[in-house]
Amino acid sequence: MTPSVAGLIIGNEVLTAKVVEANGAHLTKRLRERGLPLRMLMTVPDEVDAIVEAIDVCRRRAQWLITSGGVGPTHDDVTVRAVALALGRKVVRLPRMEALVKEHYGESATAEAMRLAEAPQGAELWDIPGHWYPVLTCERVFMLPGVPMLFKAQLEIVLQRLPTAKVELTNLYLNAGESEIASALDMVALAMPDVAIGSYPTFDPADGYRVKITVEHAERAKVSSAVERLEATLPAGSILRRE
Amino acid sequence: MTPSVAGLIIGNEVLTAKVVEANGAHLTKRLRERGLPLRMLMTVPDEVDAIVEAIDVCRRRAQWLITSGGVGPTHDDVTVRAVALALGRKVVRLPRMEALVKEHYGESATAEAMRLAEAPQGAELWDIPGHWYPVLTCERVFMLPGVPMLFKAQLEIVLQRLPTAKVELTNLYLNAGESEIASALDMVALAMPDVAIGSYPTFDPADGYRVKITVEHAERAKVSSAVERLEATLPAGSILRRE
Repeated sequence: MTPSVAGLIIGNEVLTAKVVEANGAHLTKRLRERGLPLRMLMTVPDEVDAIVEAIDVCRRRAQWLITSGGVGPTHDDVTVRAVALALGRKVVRLPRMEALVKEHYGESATAEAMRLAEAPQGAELWDIPGHWYPVLTCERVFMLPGVPMLFKAQLEIVLQRLPTAKVELTNLYLNAGESEIASALDMVALAMPDVAIGSYPTFDPADGYRVKITVEHAERAKVSSAVERLEATLPAGSILRRE
Repeated sequence: MTPSVAGLIIGNEVLTAKVVEANGAHLTKRLRERGLPLRMLMTVPDEVDAIVEAIDVCRRRAQWLITSGGVGPTHDDVTVRAVALALGRKVVRLPRMEALVKEHYGESATAEAMRLAEAPQGAELWDIPGHWYPVLTCERVFMLPGVPMLFKAQLEIVLQRLPTAKVELTNLYLNAGESEIASALDMVALAMPDVAIGSYPTFDPADGYRVKITVEHAERAKVSSAVERLEATLPAGSILRRE
């Protein structure tokens, strides 16, 4: 399997539009910058069975899974339990996490605060400079907090340990409609199936083009070859510009 | 099953951050305004097997499924095929859609343009005032285009035919941390399981509170009763304000 990531946003507040979801967009952008393919992005409610099913789906599609939200001490924080269930592991208290919680909360550490020390059996903790709460990870699942500031900080620690890759991209802007260029795209896409070719129409005259073609591959030579084929196959004069 | 909707965003351009996804956020907002619960939101690539699996997952979780993207005449438009597969139906050409495509494109209608007339067998067309391209729907799946302007126009036609509901919501803003209030939330959430209670911490001092509690139900009386219980159970003086 090519290195790839799935993202799982957990939280009723997102599905009920109480907050505008930002972590999925941030994850998408950062993965792209690192050249790591995002295979799937899901948003589910704070319900164990929905989360377990989503984890299964994501793990079949991608090597790593980054979750956002549902870690904390309250009744609606069920991510750890769901990840443990999905991985067939027990929920245990990590001694190191217990020590961190006691150190952070001091005398005021309630019984509920100790829930923060719970994790799927065998989980690892990765420290984050400047934060008391480490990244919690188990079997290539990263359980990140939903608070955007914390999600961002933890994501960078995770990304440092995942591979990076190059992505080469060329865009063609056309003054022809999709139905006029579809047969040319068919031919090139069929001849070069490992090159990702996308076709995106716009109906807003202010954009100054009618269709944008994206041509993408890890190797520049493959992209160039596909672009040459497109230039030879697309209707004469239909290409406005290449970027 | 309570009336509910799932959303499925289809498109490599979203997962590769080539565009900032807007249809999922718009769908979330509009469903909330209509009081229709959004059960799940998924984003998958332009790949038939990934889309078929996502449709299965969404349809088990929600009564209606609204998809965005992948309808069009090019090689990367595979939504109709995937929906047909997921529903166990053949892909056919709808005679009415053939007529509409011919009318729209006139003499320049290519063989590829006629792909726009393809649909799962038994699909229905719902007309949209001012647009030539109708809403394509089959077995409670609505196949909307990904272009945001078209998605928005089609979504309104769909929403007009789906039920609406009331949502009553009260927010409590607290100056206590989650671990101090977790036992109170546990008790009220356990006593009133049909009331949706959410707990959202912030670590930004500028917000002026530490945790926001959301209390939600279709009936105002249920919300009021849960809020009263919370006010009686939460640590004395921890509630800054109620909205």
